[in-house]
Amino acid sequence: MFESAQIGHKISKAEWKQEIPGLREGLLDAQLDLLQSKKIPVIILVAGVDCAGKGETVNILNEWMDPRHIETHALRDLTDEELERPHMYRYWRVLPPRGKIAIFIGTWYSTPLIDNVYGAIKNAELDQQLERIVRFEKMLCNEGALILKFWLHLSQDEQKKRLKRLEKDSNTRWRVSPVDWQHYKMYDKFRQVSERMLRQTSTPESPWIIVEGTDPRYRYLTIGKTVLNALRQRLDTPEPPQHEEPIPPIMSAIDDLLILRTLDLSKKIKKTDYQDELERYQGKLNLLTRHADFKKLSIVIVFEGNDAAGKGGSIRRITQALDARQYRVIPVAAPTEEERAQPYLWRFWRHIPRKGRFAIFDRSWYGRVLVERVEGYCAHTDWMRAYGEINDFEEQMHRKKTLVIKFWLSISQEEQLQRFKEREKVGFKRFKITDDDWRNREKWNEYELAVCDMIDRTSTEIAPWTLVEANDKYYARIKVMKTVCERIENALGK
Amino acid sequence: MFESAQIGHKISKAEWKQEIPGLREGLLDAQLDLLQSKKIPVIILVAGVDCAGKGETVNILNEWMDPRHIETHALRDLTDEELERPHMYRYWRVLPPRGKIAIFIGTWYSTPLIDNVYGAIKNAELDQQLERIVRFEKMLCNEGALILKFWLHLSQDEQKKRLKRLEKDSNTRWRVSPVDWQHYKMYDKFRQVSERMLRQTSTPESPWIIVEGTDPRYRYLTIGKTVLNALRQRLDTPEPPQHEEPIPPIMSAIDDLLILRTLDLSKKIKKTDYQDELERYQGKLNLLTRHADFKKLSIVIVFEGNDAAGKGGSIRRITQALDARQYRVIPVAAPTEEERAQPYLWRFWRHIPRKGRFAIFDRSWYGRVLVERVEGYCAHTDWMRAYGEINDFEEQMHRKKTLVIKFWLSISQEEQLQRFKEREKVGFKRFKITDDDWRNREKWNEYELAVCDMIDRTSTEIAPWTLVEANDKYYARIKVMKTVCERIENALGK
Repeated sequence: MFESAQIGHKISKAEWKQEIPGLREGLLDAQLDLLQSKKIPVIILVAGVDCAGKGETVNILNEWMDPRHIETHALRDLTDEELERPHMYRYWRVLPPRGKIAIFIGTWYSTPLIDNVYGAIKNAELDQQLERIVRFEKMLCNEGALILKFWLHLSQDEQKKRLKRLEKDSNTRWRVSPVDWQHYKMYDKFRQVSERMLRQTSTPESPWIIVEGTDPRYRYLTIGKTVLNALRQRLDTPEPPQHEEPIPPIMSAIDDLLILRTLDLSKKIKKTDYQDELERYQGKLNLLTRHADFKKLSIVIVFEGNDAAGKGGSIRRITQALDARQYRVIPVAAPTEEERAQPYLWRFWRHIPRKGRFAIFDRSWYGRVLVERVEGYCAHTDWMRAYGEINDFEEQMHRKKTLVIKFWLSISQEEQLQRFKEREKVGFKRFKITDDDWRNREKWNEYELAVCDMIDRTSTEIAPWTLVEANDKYYARIKVMKTVCERIENALGK
Repeated sequence: MFESAQIGHKISKAEWKQEIPGLREGLLDAQLDLLQSKKIPVIILVAGVDCAGKGETVNILNEWMDPRHIETHALRDLTDEELERPHMYRYWRVLPPRGKIAIFIGTWYSTPLIDNVYGAIKNAELDQQLERIVRFEKMLCNEGALILKFWLHLSQDEQKKRLKRLEKDSNTRWRVSPVDWQHYKMYDKFRQVSERMLRQTSTPESPWIIVEGTDPRYRYLTIGKTVLNALRQRLDTPEPPQHEEPIPPIMSAIDDLLILRTLDLSKKIKKTDYQDELERYQGKLNLLTRHADFKKLSIVIVFEGNDAAGKGGSIRRITQALDARQYRVIPVAAPTEEERAQPYLWRFWRHIPRKGRFAIFDRSWYGRVLVERVEGYCAHTDWMRAYGEINDFEEQMHRKKTLVIKFWLSISQEEQLQRFKEREKVGFKRFKITDDDWRNREKWNEYELAVCDMIDRTSTEIAPWTLVEANDKYYARIKVMKTVCERIENALGK
């Protein structure tokens, strides 16, 4: 895999001088088009062998292009705000918006590579981590990103030469650490693991580009030209008309027996029992949040449901049991301008709570496979891939000890009609019934199907859906409270 | 000052029952109006004597209102991302946008109070810190915020009773720590310092509201009603037509001798000298950033100047000397939707760098007193108060070891004309001359006056302006590089 990258590629000074002005002009030009069109975000990863010139390469890209529209990110120690959130959080928060370029040096590949070379993780775990990265990059590409992954290669001899040269010069001596020499001795191991990594993560959407790092002119020119070509190609190709890949339609159960229809919506609870139970569960929840281990958890609660199913009321019963300092409720509204310039999930990523805290979502990332699917706000392929992306996202939270508790509040069509009418009668603006509500209602069956697909495809062991029979508000609220308590108890190992 | 808050205020159960439904209805109603009008951000501070019921009060406000549009923030340990930035950064980042409510418990008052009570800071320092807070709150109010500051008071006897009661109950025992008893013993000292604090920070825009904390019903009802009244008042009062307070016009020097006109724009440097000097200063700057103490500093560089004065070129000469991982260039564009919902300075606050890093602003917060003043984008009073607000902001950075280096790049009217024409000739889109550029040029004199006022009012010992004679690009770039090096050297105490 690295064979072609140690055969002594070279660019002469003359050739360099001839090529550079045009390349720079072209890059600046492309960067401006990118900025003005705001078409795509550009993510450039620079990885490779130690001393192969990663830092210099990044610096020259910044020099050739307009540094005002590039952000460079290096993998440093995690801050405590990052430590308490999913592994990819540190990258999520610095992804470039459409129109901008981000260069990463020390990337999401660094940790798995080092961990495997040093034996902290076995190959099986490495493969798993790489597979997650592949899915993450695929999602970014599907959301429009251009990802360029450069791997700078050096032969072992060349690496040694560089280390010695750096050590000789008093200006660069600081750059060589004992770790560098240690890595040099482990060259073969690094090479072997890197190869495995590159092989598994070179995808059609974002292939690795291996570049021989020996000759700086060759290295810079190769990378510069690759960036330019990739930018031009994306910028000059008109977006294909919303291309609908032929995806087999999801077949709903042919006997019409849908999971939602199996719910017994007549379930009820007496008001006095409700009051007792509510008090009991609120007390329990409050106690659980003061458990010594609670500060090792974060809690994400998702509320979805039919219009007027009582999401707000259920949320209030939870928050009443909590200290206001512990929770945040996130009402999902239309995305802001900054959110629209990012991948779909970005506006949810930014609300993932720290340890010991709750984030309660009033509607959520499931909008993609519900309203956006039914109303046709996104393409078939987009909501179809969302199931997998959402599962990945929830798995990431799960791996960082974030409990994901999801509720679907279900009411019957008749109950909804009655609630709508009552609300119209009260006429109180908090419960204003909009045209949207009536229109959604007309699509009852389509929504029902979308909900059932959502449940089938995203109810997982780590983040199961709890279906709540909500024709009776008291029953629904108690079921919600009980589930929240049980899930937390469970996680605390009580 | 606390006399009226220890005379045994009480609300009977009957009265409570009668008042609450209406109050809750009113609060929800006002909150919805607030949300829909997006008129103002609401900031509620809850402070006071230990055990006076701050937490419970915040919880009940969340219960009465819609918790989806309230965020509650408690003063906890600083995260490392906060530690490396100005003191107020932790508050800046969580200020509510227009339409939302944020409740702070443990506020910007806590640290000065505790520090003074424990003798860590003297009264003079306390007063200084309080004065800064007053200015901060005043700025928020001027930017439209509604600030409500509640101080919950308890007599010493009542405090003792509460501590004992909490200790008796196994459910609440955890809430009483040795620190609480220690504070109890220091009651008089706390009272005395609190009084001083309240006195100095009760302003017409945001007065303290002292509430007796003994009877919960009295406490809740007082606060609930105060919040409701304040909300209604602000929401129901039509915004006064852009009210221009009669402010004396800034008088420009009557002999027409302006600081900008004293610059000798003919200053020049030879190309060969330029190349030598540039290399020398870039090397020096690079070395400085590798100084052991450099990681204790942060660097903020501001570039302002006439159109076509060469800001971009100067910025590139700096970044060329740096590692791309160390800096970020922030090109100031039109504020985003999220930025528009916040105080003017918010969009700059978010880019303040961590230690060991540069943030280079291509245009900056000075837009307020330049383009916004000249083009009339904001009211006279708004740009007039901006001078003081900007000085406060820069002082905050300075106190946290952030160097603020500011450049005004000055060219003559003739030089600008020539550059505009050249750019039009090249016709290259990077340097497109827009109608804006030509229009700004017509207001040359007004801009000149605004720049001189800006320099006079914001060139401070801690954040001086460097005026750069920029008709000759080489000369300008070297002066910029030299200044940056000197300022950093100076800060490193070399």
